[in-house]
Amino acid sequence: MRQAGRYLPEYRVIRARHDFLTMVRTPELASQVTLQPVDRLGVDAAIIFSDILVIPMALGMTLSVEEGVGPVLHRPLRSERDIGRLRPFDPEGELSYLLDAIRMTRAALGGRVPLIGFAGAPWTLAGYMVEGAGTREWRAIKRLIAEAPATAHRLLDLLTEAVGRTLVAQAAAGVQVLQIFDSWAGALAPRDFDRFALPYLARAARSVRATGLPVIVFAPGADWALESIAKETGADVVSIGWHTRPAEARSRLASFDVACQGNFDPAWLYSDPDVIRERVREMIAEFGVQGYIANLGHGVLKDTPVEHVQEFVSAVQGWKSSGSERSERSEKSEAGLT
Amino acid sequence: MRQAGRYLPEYRVIRARHDFLTMVRTPELASQVTLQPVDRLGVDAAIIFSDILVIPMALGMTLSVEEGVGPVLHRPLRSERDIGRLRPFDPEGELSYLLDAIRMTRAALGGRVPLIGFAGAPWTLAGYMVEGAGTREWRAIKRLIAEAPATAHRLLDLLTEAVGRTLVAQAAAGVQVLQIFDSWAGALAPRDFDRFALPYLARAARSVRATGLPVIVFAPGADWALESIAKETGADVVSIGWHTRPAEARSRLASFDVACQGNFDPAWLYSDPDVIRERVREMIAEFGVQGYIANLGHGVLKDTPVEHVQEFVSAVQGWKSSGSERSERSEKSEAGLT
Repeated sequence: MRQAGRYLPEYRVIRARHDFLTMVRTPELASQVTLQPVDRLGVDAAIIFSDILVIPMALGMTLSVEEGVGPVLHRPLRSERDIGRLRPFDPEGELSYLLDAIRMTRAALGGRVPLIGFAGAPWTLAGYMVEGAGTREWRAIKRLIAEAPATAHRLLDLLTEAVGRTLVAQAAAGVQVLQIFDSWAGALAPRDFDRFALPYLARAARSVRATGLPVIVFAPGADWALESIAKETGADVVSIGWHTRPAEARSRLASFDVACQGNFDPAWLYSDPDVIRERVREMIAEFGVQGYIANLGHGVLKDTPVEHVQEFVSAVQGWKSSGSERSERSEKSEAGLT
Repeated sequence: MRQAGRYLPEYRVIRARHDFLTMVRTPELASQVTLQPVDRLGVDAAIIFSDILVIPMALGMTLSVEEGVGPVLHRPLRSERDIGRLRPFDPEGELSYLLDAIRMTRAALGGRVPLIGFAGAPWTLAGYMVEGAGTREWRAIKRLIAEAPATAHRLLDLLTEAVGRTLVAQAAAGVQVLQIFDSWAGALAPRDFDRFALPYLARAARSVRATGLPVIVFAPGADWALESIAKETGADVVSIGWHTRPAEARSRLASFDVACQGNFDPAWLYSDPDVIRERVREMIAEFGVQGYIANLGHGVLKDTPVEHVQEFVSAVQGWKSSGSERSERSEKSEAGLT
């Protein structure tokens, strides 16, 4: 879930020489890659090149990222004792590579566009740390919450503090917007989401209010919970997944003081440029231009033609309303790609 | 998505001696395994042991099921030409093993409980046939619908006919209920679901009305479309995924003449028996007993303790309403496990 990635030839050049984790942990490389979509596509914001699993690594877990397998956390946590073995969390020490990358990127951007920092939400991090890898059934973490809920809550507590501190440290290092990804929110039925995901997401989001930065939350797969996400997290912006029609998101969030972000299906970027332009037009018309960040509803797919991504950005930036909204647009439109 | 499976010791005994596909294609074994949950758990219906990928096989594709990998369809379809190479569909010939298994199972059941037949929906089958295997991003099929929608529609047309004919053949062989699984419905944004999934699901469902059998449809991951699924398919029963609160499903479907099935999160079967019982009680109270089939919202997870599955069935069958619904209950309650 990032702007930079394999769809960019200049990314592939760097990736051919360094593995993914080296790129994440080398501030020069992370910064360089963060700037690529800004330079190439002219997006209206940059998002720091990193990974949500930097927190489990900082807590002492070993991550490897293998071709075709995805990220794997070794020795996944399965018990109270496993959790007890995690290292005390020290973002300034263990995540100094991330904070250096942020400082470097801010300097390189020279104010061109704002820089977004991010972290995974507690539930999503707990899920990865217990499963050890991507999964379709989430059997290990769901077994843990069923069999040992107190252990799960202990892990979630610990992660909530880590997420908050990571975001605050990123703010201090210079990011101008904070985003929290609860990528595995869709693993949970509503009653479990309300117990194991939402309260921790909300605490993490609220714990960074003192930074004064805008907070974006994204819980893909849990769009059924949009209202409670807006209410409980107090976020400034709620990202909308591509399963939800923009008009529906807007109407359900109408009573909250919250902006929307999203929600173009990344697969639509396979379409012809004129189709892309038409769908962007429809999306913006449906969301309306006020309190709206035009964006994809998920990360760019790696085999997306880069010209098509460019088309998306141009379509957003060139968007013209048919009527009265036109003047607002010039102040408000923003194109980002998560 | 089936009642029989690895959580049953007697299933594992047979599975240790035969691979999954042999079990599917050997009527004696398929029938034997179909009966296991009826004998062991006393569920109120049986669902024939089979796989949604029998249709792609009947169309000439080669399926293998590998441990830890899941089902793989070899030489996935990527072009008009690939589709042209599919064999003409002949359920009585190519799927005779399934029809024989149904006849055998009906005889063995001797009227104890009704037998459910099923098929995958056209969109889901098309997805598997184009991807070749499970996927998290559905890049190949989504690329096809973006780049060559006419080719996708041609494949979907062909599959709609195959699905309808397969279900009609199962009806003729003796099943008493028909279920259609659109397992990959969640791959699509609403506008694509409305073009590539729903119309074909609806045509398949309507094409089997002449059998006179009740039709159940299940489109997990597309619960946002419950109303249009009920309306367009004309199904007798709509299965509700575990992401949707029962009361919400009921209220959204209130204006349709449709029963609900579902929607217990299979992971809740990891919980203690008293928690399972309590959640079953809540679920039934929320759905109400009329026009409701108590069931899981997805397949039983393979590491589920069999006593916990038993607890679910007992809780449903022993369910007592606190008041006036009591007399209705005795006529209406049914416990099934998809």
